[in-house]
Amino acid sequence: MTKRVTNFSPGPAVLPEPVLAAARRDLLALPGVGSSVLEISHRSPAFKEILDAAEAGLRKLLDIPRNYRVLFLQGGSRLQFSMVPMNLLRGSGRSADYVLTGAWGNKAIVEARREGDVRVAWDAKETNYDRLPEPGDLDLDADAAYCHFTSNETIEGVQFPTEPEVGNVPLACDASSDFLSRPLPIGRYGLLYACAQKNAGPAGVTVVILREDLLQRGAETLPGMLNYRNHDEHHSLYNTPPTFAIYMLRLIVDWLTNDIGGLEAMAAQNRRKAQMLYEVIDRSDGFYRGHARTDCRSLMNVTFRLPSDEIQATFIAGAAERDLHSLKGHRSVGGIRASIYNAMPVAGVEQLRNFMTGFHKKNI
Amino acid sequence: MTKRVTNFSPGPAVLPEPVLAAARRDLLALPGVGSSVLEISHRSPAFKEILDAAEAGLRKLLDIPRNYRVLFLQGGSRLQFSMVPMNLLRGSGRSADYVLTGAWGNKAIVEARREGDVRVAWDAKETNYDRLPEPGDLDLDADAAYCHFTSNETIEGVQFPTEPEVGNVPLACDASSDFLSRPLPIGRYGLLYACAQKNAGPAGVTVVILREDLLQRGAETLPGMLNYRNHDEHHSLYNTPPTFAIYMLRLIVDWLTNDIGGLEAMAAQNRRKAQMLYEVIDRSDGFYRGHARTDCRSLMNVTFRLPSDEIQATFIAGAAERDLHSLKGHRSVGGIRASIYNAMPVAGVEQLRNFMTGFHKKNI
Repeated sequence: MTKRVTNFSPGPAVLPEPVLAAARRDLLALPGVGSSVLEISHRSPAFKEILDAAEAGLRKLLDIPRNYRVLFLQGGSRLQFSMVPMNLLRGSGRSADYVLTGAWGNKAIVEARREGDVRVAWDAKETNYDRLPEPGDLDLDADAAYCHFTSNETIEGVQFPTEPEVGNVPLACDASSDFLSRPLPIGRYGLLYACAQKNAGPAGVTVVILREDLLQRGAETLPGMLNYRNHDEHHSLYNTPPTFAIYMLRLIVDWLTNDIGGLEAMAAQNRRKAQMLYEVIDRSDGFYRGHARTDCRSLMNVTFRLPSDEIQATFIAGAAERDLHSLKGHRSVGGIRASIYNAMPVAGVEQLRNFMTGFHKKNI
Repeated sequence: MTKRVTNFSPGPAVLPEPVLAAARRDLLALPGVGSSVLEISHRSPAFKEILDAAEAGLRKLLDIPRNYRVLFLQGGSRLQFSMVPMNLLRGSGRSADYVLTGAWGNKAIVEARREGDVRVAWDAKETNYDRLPEPGDLDLDADAAYCHFTSNETIEGVQFPTEPEVGNVPLACDASSDFLSRPLPIGRYGLLYACAQKNAGPAGVTVVILREDLLQRGAETLPGMLNYRNHDEHHSLYNTPPTFAIYMLRLIVDWLTNDIGGLEAMAAQNRRKAQMLYEVIDRSDGFYRGHARTDCRSLMNVTFRLPSDEIQATFIAGAAERDLHSLKGHRSVGGIRASIYNAMPVAGVEQLRNFMTGFHKKNI
């Protein structure tokens, strides 16, 4: 095994080392099965046990109410950008509200517009997506088919600390980049989706949690794979699911439950990690400039700039020398982005903090 | 590591042991990268090298002409059942021809009918899908948007030995269960798709090979994820692809190239394996009754029945005692199905052959 580096990738992202070790241990043959998890039928008892454990573990971790379904799908959030309006908007005779706090919400609304009428309930474009709506800012339609928001915008690094208040309209959330990073009041949502490759597993599986009454909205004419009802009726076995990604998700759910001690404990650790980096930024006399407004900061993606592109390049190179990797901001925004999802160890954040402090001193 | 059994699963299916061993070796950290392949960004140089190598390897193995594109998508063949007609049929002013030789072709046509006009060019329903069309049997529309067929029907065990002749109409093929099992004259196809979990990898990635002129057919109004053009323009990085499944596919392509010696050699081995089992069936005086007509037999899925359900149950139990697993036929057909894809070793087929011969003797 070669040495492991400290990986701040925004996703696919670092995974818990005990999870990787468990997957590695059993990769040639699951105990008692005699085949790799990569080789077993999705209809085998061994896979059914994995699928059931993944769902049961998620239900326990998030305290998901009984009238909510849990689906394991493919296609990432990008396909959900279409599936949500296909199932909940098309033919509803209503429009959908979208709250735009960054790049991903903007991609979601493009797809929604192909499927029906869409209203922008709020848009932070004017301030380059550095903030969230204040109470009362949202221009809401009380008859909307749903109201969609992005709980954490990975590119800009803004995160809703709690759900926006939308009355009785079903709340639809792209929770891709902070899913499982903290407890969630699932009962406040109509539908919530998350691709796994930030906090919940490797790329290839997308979790959808939806209130069962919303299953009835999709038209029979929808393509079979894009109708939530089909996936629900077949318990995520409508077609061959991404079996390995679900297996990994199950191991991560077990890790969160047993090693971490649940989502409250995970959230506390995530707050501590983010605070370490934001403190360095705030105490740097403007050497490090955070992108997000202080009260809108993401605990998952810490985004900031340095005084010049040249200093930024030196920062990235110096970090890499210390095995601190994937710190470059998204190409559409630039700057630095440290993604510190669940599986980023506290020690990794400490290393980055120490490097940032030292780098600042050297470059005053 | 626990003992490995002989796994005749129809998919997800047995993988080459050297491929599993290589994946296991590097699971905690790719050499020179310092992170697991499960943890690296799809936009990292390390993943780009994997994606490029997967495509280059496929191009070499299948001798794919330069005017064909290779895409790595999600959603399995089920999503292709919709994407093919969405991109090639919708709004074309034409209809599409479907050749029905089994259960999967029937599922494909259901989805095509949601997208446009469809004609049945041939249907083997009357004889319970035990055969293929003879030359001249197809009722073809010379103006069809495309003609779709299923090269290998896994449930019934019928396989086209060569492509049906459809003139100038683009040939669209669901090659999911015999892709990479033999050389293919790609130039005869308009579009070919295959989910990986039979011969090409684990579940979670679907390969689409299409002639570049067909990329222009999809309407701009299609959902972004369902438009082949988007995936082509972004070289399969339109969204986060199933990185691990693509990594495994690349290892399998390397195994086919270096360990097996290419698709001619693979095809020869597959013929030899299938012949071993069909010989036992043909020499059993009707004790084993093959489902497919002799000249339509699949080299991938050997389907047969025994004299009674009771004897069948004894057969399956006896096989399991010898570590020969997953031999039960699909629930919609019954009987026995031995899936002997590329990665099933000759020795595994020999074990099954010997068991079948002995079982017959004991039950005469």
